[in-house]
Amino acid sequence: MKYCNPHIKNIEAYKPGEQPECKDNIVKLNTNESPYSPSKNILKMLEDFDISLLRLYPDPKAEKLCETIADKLNFSKDNIIATNGSDEVFTYIFNAFVSNKKNVIFTNPTYTVYESLAYRFNINFTTIETESDFSIDLSKVPNESNTVFFLANPNAQTGIYIDFETLENFIKKFKGLIIVDEAYIDFAPKGIISLALKYDNLIVTRTLSKSYSLCGIRLGFAASNSINIEALHKVKDSYNINMLTQMIAIEAINDEKHMLENAYKIITERERMIEILNKMCFMVLPSKANFVLAKPLLNNAKDIFEALKKQNIYVRYFETPRLKEYIRITIGSEKENNILIKALSKINNN
Amino acid sequence: MKYCNPHIKNIEAYKPGEQPECKDNIVKLNTNESPYSPSKNILKMLEDFDISLLRLYPDPKAEKLCETIADKLNFSKDNIIATNGSDEVFTYIFNAFVSNKKNVIFTNPTYTVYESLAYRFNINFTTIETESDFSIDLSKVPNESNTVFFLANPNAQTGIYIDFETLENFIKKFKGLIIVDEAYIDFAPKGIISLALKYDNLIVTRTLSKSYSLCGIRLGFAASNSINIEALHKVKDSYNINMLTQMIAIEAINDEKHMLENAYKIITERERMIEILNKMCFMVLPSKANFVLAKPLLNNAKDIFEALKKQNIYVRYFETPRLKEYIRITIGSEKENNILIKALSKINNN
Repeated sequence: MKYCNPHIKNIEAYKPGEQPECKDNIVKLNTNESPYSPSKNILKMLEDFDISLLRLYPDPKAEKLCETIADKLNFSKDNIIATNGSDEVFTYIFNAFVSNKKNVIFTNPTYTVYESLAYRFNINFTTIETESDFSIDLSKVPNESNTVFFLANPNAQTGIYIDFETLENFIKKFKGLIIVDEAYIDFAPKGIISLALKYDNLIVTRTLSKSYSLCGIRLGFAASNSINIEALHKVKDSYNINMLTQMIAIEAINDEKHMLENAYKIITERERMIEILNKMCFMVLPSKANFVLAKPLLNNAKDIFEALKKQNIYVRYFETPRLKEYIRITIGSEKENNILIKALSKINNN
Repeated sequence: MKYCNPHIKNIEAYKPGEQPECKDNIVKLNTNESPYSPSKNILKMLEDFDISLLRLYPDPKAEKLCETIADKLNFSKDNIIATNGSDEVFTYIFNAFVSNKKNVIFTNPTYTVYESLAYRFNINFTTIETESDFSIDLSKVPNESNTVFFLANPNAQTGIYIDFETLENFIKKFKGLIIVDEAYIDFAPKGIISLALKYDNLIVTRTLSKSYSLCGIRLGFAASNSINIEALHKVKDSYNINMLTQMIAIEAINDEKHMLENAYKIITERERMIEILNKMCFMVLPSKANFVLAKPLLNNAKDIFEALKKQNIYVRYFETPRLKEYIRITIGSEKENNILIKALSKINNN
């Protein structure tokens, strides 16, 4: 570590959930992937794709893709920046809007990437504890012009959702900059991306990973007024989104119906799972995402996590003070969910 | 710009070369793309690809890809980090190894992304002017432990190449950290990536964009000792390389023969073009890259650039003090090069 910056020495890299090799006998409910395939239009596009085009650079600003996204939102393409997963847009937000002269705020718990970025950029931050039921008390966020507040809604890890009116009322009065990460919003009642031009202190981020079943392509985007988006363009890697991702994302967004049908199936399964888990003595948070955070009342959470893993069923366990008594379960297909239920049932009866 | 960091306000985004829509009548010799298609193995792989896999996250560390790269170099996978184009690895190098406590050095001219990153990260830097023939006098680089020196070899914009022995002798005595960007090395006699484990102050970066004809997929990588690579992993976006890019890159690297044949054809064409351009009263630098920097002695460089553009022939023009008398011409296919020669010949005779 002789040559590296001192603040790097003690940091740990972000730990993504385990990505076991995809085999038939694995039930993978640990990283909030969709159990359903993405739009079939992608297959058609790939069949017609001329690989000799790969010798060329992709469109550096992904303009067709940004237009496709903007059209859906009735925005202009200058209100959209497309990124290599939404993680990359958070990186750009750190470059363009975050410094140690700002008061950087995350909730606890939330998406762990915000914290990883703070360590990476050597930025001090403050966490606001969620309440005992993991709800977020927005009045705890310092209402000052130098506040930069990262809010995941629905919240990562918990699935807790803040409704449209509550969030708009907060933003309206808020003097700082708020980044609302809507990675899971298609599984919730209503997002606030429609407000992205109404309030100049608002940046909304989304991803195709979850509801569009496209973790594999890495496509995120941010919507905001053109001045904020321009600042993000200034710090952007010039060719940040590869050619195939741009083309696949356009196909997926143009087939919104497919996404909505899948999201509906996942929501239905989520409600079924919450009911069953409650009956099986789990305390389950009222999630509006494609996962549930559940506290086993009969067993130790970590023991359950380990026991499931031995049976090739992967859920997520976070060994942190607020989450260590819980397991996070991605909502899979009906079949996958039933395998999990059966396994949990056996553990309960042992 | 109310919410953005002060250092962002005055910076300009990196300006990539124009990417006109790919049409049959365009001769595109402006962004150093290969005129040849990538390996046919990619086509086969894509034909067999199951798009339902895209619902899953890609391997966060791209381990199979890093192993494939490492095997070719007789390194271990811990000596390689794969990134979203080599631009992304420079970003990570800034996070992990660059600060205002370091003396950051670029040559002038060189790859403009280094300078863009310095502005983005608010880092002071010093440029070392190349000599009148654009050669680089390495003795001008401050030999101090806090120096971080970015060297493109062959150099961007000029194609000037520093030979293996000269560069190794420099690195051996150099007390700082050197990043050698070998984006164009497959068109040159010999790179120094084989030394990446021998000297702990050396990071070598490469890309599949140029010689592998894969600008479109965005795949770069760095090779260094495992301690330097670990520092880069600590600042890496967790899922930085999408699934298809990982798979395509593996196919391409395993078909090295195809790349070498294409590189040979480009080298042959480059030497032919240098000879012809010299005869047409251009002063051409002795490039070892897939482009040449040429100074027209009969006409104004910018006028030629504009005149060619009107005929749908794109070359690159940089309006900077050192480069404004030159045009940079990517080596295309024999056919494309002949179209360019014919057009230049007409301009000369007008």
